[in-house]
Amino acid sequence: MENLGKTRWVFADGYVPAWSNGPGPEMLSHEAVCILNAGDEVARISLTLYFADRDPVGPYRLDVPACRTLHQRLNDLSDPAPVPANLSYACVLESDRPVVVQHTRLDSRQAENAIFSTIAWSG
Amino acid sequence: MENLGKTRWVFADGYVPAWSNGPGPEMLSHEAVCILNAGDEVARISLTLYFADRDPVGPYRLDVPACRTLHQRLNDLSDPAPVPANLSYACVLESDRPVVVQHTRLDSRQAENAIFSTIAWSG
Amino acid sequence: MENLGKTRWVFADGYVPAWSNGPGPEMLSHEAVCILNAGDEVARISLTLYFADRDPVGPYRLDVPACRTLHQRLNDLSDPAPVPANLSYACVLESDRPVVVQHTRLDSRQAENAIFSTIAWSG
Amino acid sequence: MENLGKTRWVFADGYVPAWSNGPGPEMLSHEAVCILNAGDEVARISLTLYFADRDPVGPYRLDVPACRTLHQRLNDLSDPAPVPANLSYACVLESDRPVVVQHTRLDSRQAENAIFSTIAWSG
Repeated sequence: MENLGKTRWVFADGYVPAWSNGPGPEMLSHEAVCILNAGDEVARISLTLYFADRDPVGPYRLDVPACRTLHQRLNDLSDPAPVPANLSYACVLESDRPVVVQHTRLDSRQAENAIFSTIAWSG
Repeated sequence: MENLGKTRWVFADGYVPAWSNGPGPEMLSHEAVCILNAGDEVARISLTLYFADRDPVGPYRLDVPACRTLHQRLNDLSDPAPVPANLSYACVLESDRPVVVQHTRLDSRQAENAIFSTIAWSG
Repeated sequence: MENLGKTRWVFADGYVPAWSNGPGPEMLSHEAVCILNAGDEVARISLTLYFADRDPVGPYRLDVPACRTLHQRLNDLSDPAPVPANLSYACVLESDRPVVVQHTRLDSRQAENAIFSTIAWSG
Repeated sequence: MENLGKTRWVFADGYVPAWSNGPGPEMLSHEAVCILNAGDEVARISLTLYFADRDPVGPYRLDVPACRTLHQRLNDLSDPAPVPANLSYACVLESDRPVVVQHTRLDSRQAENAIFSTIAWSG
């Protein structure tokens, strides 16, 4: 399945909640960028994060092998810098091959978790 | 209403939570792929699932009759293999006729359920 | 703002939860189809509901005045027939003028409510 | 990254819940319009709000600097008028430069919060 997807994706409501309830890693408050590479070659991906009051940070580099999916928690990224909790951000994903991207948050700041997910925007 | 929809759909954040609270089947943690076939003939559908560290699995075959909707729980599929819980996956749906697809999760791992839903991506 | 939107919209994961917790009307489990008519003339709208095991039901007729929004709870519809609770359905919305449509569920079957929302699909 | 996005965006299910539980500002019930301006010049933005039974209100003016994101809570807006709680509305966003927009609600009317988010509609 070559050429399934797009090479540029955006989500605008990035936010890693600052605290959590419940057993980790499942119930840890987090955000994930979920990427499908249905093609026959590795997809080389760069994330750039945008903030309200500081310069963009990136690239965060990710590889997604052929015919694989990667569900990357944003709060697990550290290079070039950790993603700050409790700070609004937005994310642009660029890939050298077509991929499909979905953006998900799990918020367990209260005792019971809340979740949202949306297909990212690809223009 | 012929030709309402697309023949290929994707969602990238597949994940069946591994435990549940509350009365089943309603409160069982699950994911659903919700398909509308508004056309006048049966839609023959194949799902292929992609994982992080293993080869894709499929096709899972589903028929949606003319002028019907099918809300298929992923965790109820068994052929060619059950969908593992607590494992990230992505899903490509292919249909021989246009359909519309929405992806939904109910997560009841905490005492109170959480839900998300998004129209899948159709390119 | 003439011509803002599309004339045909779909959501596939229709489902009115069968019970509720908390004060009504806010906390009553429900689904809403949220319609914006940003144009200068009334939009005349028809909903058709599709089910898994029965024939489609409709049209449900709604008018949205010029420069107004209508957030219609599906469970408040009665003509030509009430929308059954605890039964999967899908919805096709047709309008004689461009509108924008969003699909939302509030599920209060557990003590704490859960919500989802997605822009509907317009092709 | 010039020209990333669109200049007109819509969400139809606007609603600020009327009460809250939990510590503010995080757990205050709210809606946010999350805007990414990945371009090299400030984006000048106008919001217009539509209601069920009254005339539209706006423009609400927002600036998003170059290479920045703005996550604006609707309930923090006051000019030309506050956004009423417990009242259905819809929102049209217009920008003089391309942006990407996501619509999010946090509902903490029950003890545990619920969230949803969707990429807005851009035509």
